[in-house]
Amino acid sequence: MKLYEQAARTLRQRIDHGVYRVGDRLPSIRALCRELEISVSTAQEAYRRLEEAALVEARPKSGYYVIPREVPTVLPSVTRPAQRPLDVSQWDHVLALVDMAPDEDVLMLGRGVPDLEAATLKPLSRLLATLHRRGGAHDLSYDRLSGSRELRERIVRLATGSGCLLHPDDVLITTGCQEALSIAIRTLAAPGDVVAVDSPSFYGTMQILKANGLKALEIPTDPELGISLEALELALEQWPIRAIQVTPTCNNPLGYTMPESRKRALVALAQRFDVAIIEDDIYGDLSFATPRPKTLKAFDDDGRVLLCSGFSKTLGPGLRVGWIAPGRYRDQVTHMKYVSTGASATLPQLAVAEFIAKGHYERHLREMIRQYQRHRDVLLRLVKRHFSADTGISYPQGGFLMWLELPAGVDCLRLNERLAASRVRIAPGSLFSASGKYRHCLRLNYALPLTATVAEAIRRVGEVATDMVAEAIEHPLADSQR
Amino acid sequence: MKLYEQAARTLRQRIDHGVYRVGDRLPSIRALCRELEISVSTAQEAYRRLEEAALVEARPKSGYYVIPREVPTVLPSVTRPAQRPLDVSQWDHVLALVDMAPDEDVLMLGRGVPDLEAATLKPLSRLLATLHRRGGAHDLSYDRLSGSRELRERIVRLATGSGCLLHPDDVLITTGCQEALSIAIRTLAAPGDVVAVDSPSFYGTMQILKANGLKALEIPTDPELGISLEALELALEQWPIRAIQVTPTCNNPLGYTMPESRKRALVALAQRFDVAIIEDDIYGDLSFATPRPKTLKAFDDDGRVLLCSGFSKTLGPGLRVGWIAPGRYRDQVTHMKYVSTGASATLPQLAVAEFIAKGHYERHLREMIRQYQRHRDVLLRLVKRHFSADTGISYPQGGFLMWLELPAGVDCLRLNERLAASRVRIAPGSLFSASGKYRHCLRLNYALPLTATVAEAIRRVGEVATDMVAEAIEHPLADSQR
Ligand SMILES: Cc1ncc(COP(=O)(O)O)c(C=O)c1O
Ligand SMILES: Cc1ncc(COP(=O)(O)O)c(C=O)c1O
Repeated sequence: MKLYEQAARTLRQRIDHGVYRVGDRLPSIRALCRELEISVSTAQEAYRRLEEAALVEARPKSGYYVIPREVPTVLPSVTRPAQRPLDVSQWDHVLALVDMAPDEDVLMLGRGVPDLEAATLKPLSRLLATLHRRGGAHDLSYDRLSGSRELRERIVRLATGSGCLLHPDDVLITTGCQEALSIAIRTLAAPGDVVAVDSPSFYGTMQILKANGLKALEIPTDPELGISLEALELALEQWPIRAIQVTPTCNNPLGYTMPESRKRALVALAQRFDVAIIEDDIYGDLSFATPRPKTLKAFDDDGRVLLCSGFSKTLGPGLRVGWIAPGRYRDQVTHMKYVSTGASATLPQLAVAEFIAKGHYERHLREMIRQYQRHRDVLLRLVKRHFSADTGISYPQGGFLMWLELPAGVDCLRLNERLAASRVRIAPGSLFSASGKYRHCLRLNYALPLTATVAEAIRRVGEVATDMVAEAIEHPLADSQR
Repeated sequence: MKLYEQAARTLRQRIDHGVYRVGDRLPSIRALCRELEISVSTAQEAYRRLEEAALVEARPKSGYYVIPREVPTVLPSVTRPAQRPLDVSQWDHVLALVDMAPDEDVLMLGRGVPDLEAATLKPLSRLLATLHRRGGAHDLSYDRLSGSRELRERIVRLATGSGCLLHPDDVLITTGCQEALSIAIRTLAAPGDVVAVDSPSFYGTMQILKANGLKALEIPTDPELGISLEALELALEQWPIRAIQVTPTCNNPLGYTMPESRKRALVALAQRFDVAIIEDDIYGDLSFATPRPKTLKAFDDDGRVLLCSGFSKTLGPGLRVGWIAPGRYRDQVTHMKYVSTGASATLPQLAVAEFIAKGHYERHLREMIRQYQRHRDVLLRLVKRHFSADTGISYPQGGFLMWLELPAGVDCLRLNERLAASRVRIAPGSLFSASGKYRHCLRLNYALPLTATVAEAIRRVGEVATDMVAEAIEHPLADSQR
């Protein structure tokens, strides 16, 4: 860590621990230099970082002051999905979101795509170019079915950071995290079976259930604590649940990270009822906490957790590099992987492995986490300004996705239609439910620099949404009349 | 087409049509120049091509003579698989074949990998490198779910060459042909359903059946004509068959191309019984016939053929670029594609599209077809020399795979074990059957230049096989005693 980063961290910890409180003046540059034995420019850089992170502000001729953290006034409510297993619908709307031509001239405020213009990502393109230019016969041939040994070794080392002790042979490379989830679910469940999910839940996983004739049992979920263990326990008693599928860290779409104690309890619950857990950790490395939170897999002592992840959210989804650590289901998952796509593409794996090996990944994560945390606060401010005061706003602990809950009666599918003229799109909340609940909710993406254009688009979304709130109050039946 | 190619083709056609017969002397260089109005060097080059293709030989001071074609003396027998739907087994053996580390120091004589060192392939690596170096945000992002429009347009144009009239929207890009087959099968059949297949059949497809709890009904297959339409018709009358899966052009592993009349009849049969056909055409572009044979899809007037293909055998499997033209099943296949891996990787698609657009693909195919045809004849000669005279040998009409049928009682799984010491491996025939039939058969690959090392390896395989034939005769019960 650089000196200024160390200094910034020291100050940050003091703010976090209440040594300096909101409104307090922080040590002067000179005082800081003396105390930490650093140079003036280092001290200045440290303060610049804290400003960027929206923790302090500089007041001219006075010094640096701790400013109030941007936190939501209203969180989304704890969800209350259907109490029974359901067939998944919503495919048409998912398709509309995912099959857009990438260059269509529409501002996609709702997609799950990270910032791909980041300077710290450039070495990846260079590595890819170099590897492809080499063009050896091995690179164009089938890779090992389980994937490149180099990459699996890197993944295993990274996984120690989330509390997992894995061997490279415990990991299989997949074509994106989607394939990891898909083969995990197909390994565990057969048509007609029930899978319990957090709710709202990533639509990609819900659609896997649909495609395989499985039923989703959506479990009430707290926007700060994650899936309700109490409700899950009742469900496990009542229904023949074959697997639990959750995204417990930097959840998509809610942004929470389940507290460690609850993660531990979730694994214990799965053990008690002898069901498997499919854990989606694709945003986990983008947690704003240091060190990054542990996975459920870290508490898994009998191999029942199938950990699914990948580099789509940290590097780029176009690479299609994902992975799975399938625990005791390794053999079946290997078979499923083979029939699904055979071996994965060779060179993207090698490029990612080298990107990690050379330290680029760590550097890039550090940069992105800082950026996303800053963007979260800026977006929060914009949403508070432009949406009605009773809008529930999630407070993401990582990643780059924010969930808004508008007053009941507002229909975000219609919101999207109305936004079409402004060439703006959000992700309607109904995609994240088996039966199209959460129509009054929406997902926003804050990965991209919040330029004036983006800010204006957010303002516009807020404006249209506010109009719709007013209409919903005036004509409460409008929706069902349509 | 170059002038010498035209001249060579003219001569070749005359040989094919019996104008010149085996042993006949061909026109002298001078006569040919006069007749075709070409230069001496062109005429020489034309004869050089015919020599390479093992059609003529030069006799010093005399001229060029038509030589006997290298054709097998004994073809493999028409197969007689089980007469009822079976669960698929053999996964352990398939895994042993497909999960080899690519750099292990073993000569893989049985794998389905093309020549990846070809000079005509080099532009592909250059294109890939250039595209990756660009490293734009779009390239790293999710592509359209159906894949790159450019590539789909190119595929549609190529498909006219096999008699298909497709629109780019009729095509979805997949992660290799394996994914195309996998989603096609999952679209059509549910656990317990029966799928009819040609037999022997590509193990990758058989394993898809296994993974999805489907049963394979293996249909007797002729090594020259393909799947028996008579047997298939009986099967369709007797069993509730949900789909027919065949590889009718340059079949893997038998190498036949079904005659056009039989292809037409197969589609008509499927119509009569109202079942879908999953057509695997991955080797079709490598047919030795010009123009390349039509697909079943060319005769499909009601969208019941799901045509699966890709560039793994023509360019390189490490690219993982495949495609499917799913006919009337487009919507369900699109959903299956989404849940399977989401969008496919962006840049390999663009690289392949450009490779085709710039004429590299056509050039490369021409070169490879010439090479593979030559290699087939060389391998045929080697097999005839080193294997017992009663060995059935397929006569591939395209691609780079040859099927040998040893006398009954020889066990090619054991053959592989015995070859381990020589660091040589073949693909045992039992992989190509649901229940492990064809143990006395094996598949060889002739894509690679048949160097002295390869020739020696073939000799060694023949030697061990011949020993095993002798043992099988002496100890006919040895196998069941083990
Ligand atoms: C929670 C979650 N899991 C999995 C995926 C799929 O990731 P990939 O693009 O690697 O298939 C996504 C992407 O949107 C996601 O948000
Ligand atoms: C007949 C056949 N179909 C499909 C495939 C799979 O192709 P891909 O590597 O594109 O998934 C193969 C590869 O061995 C094959 O031989």
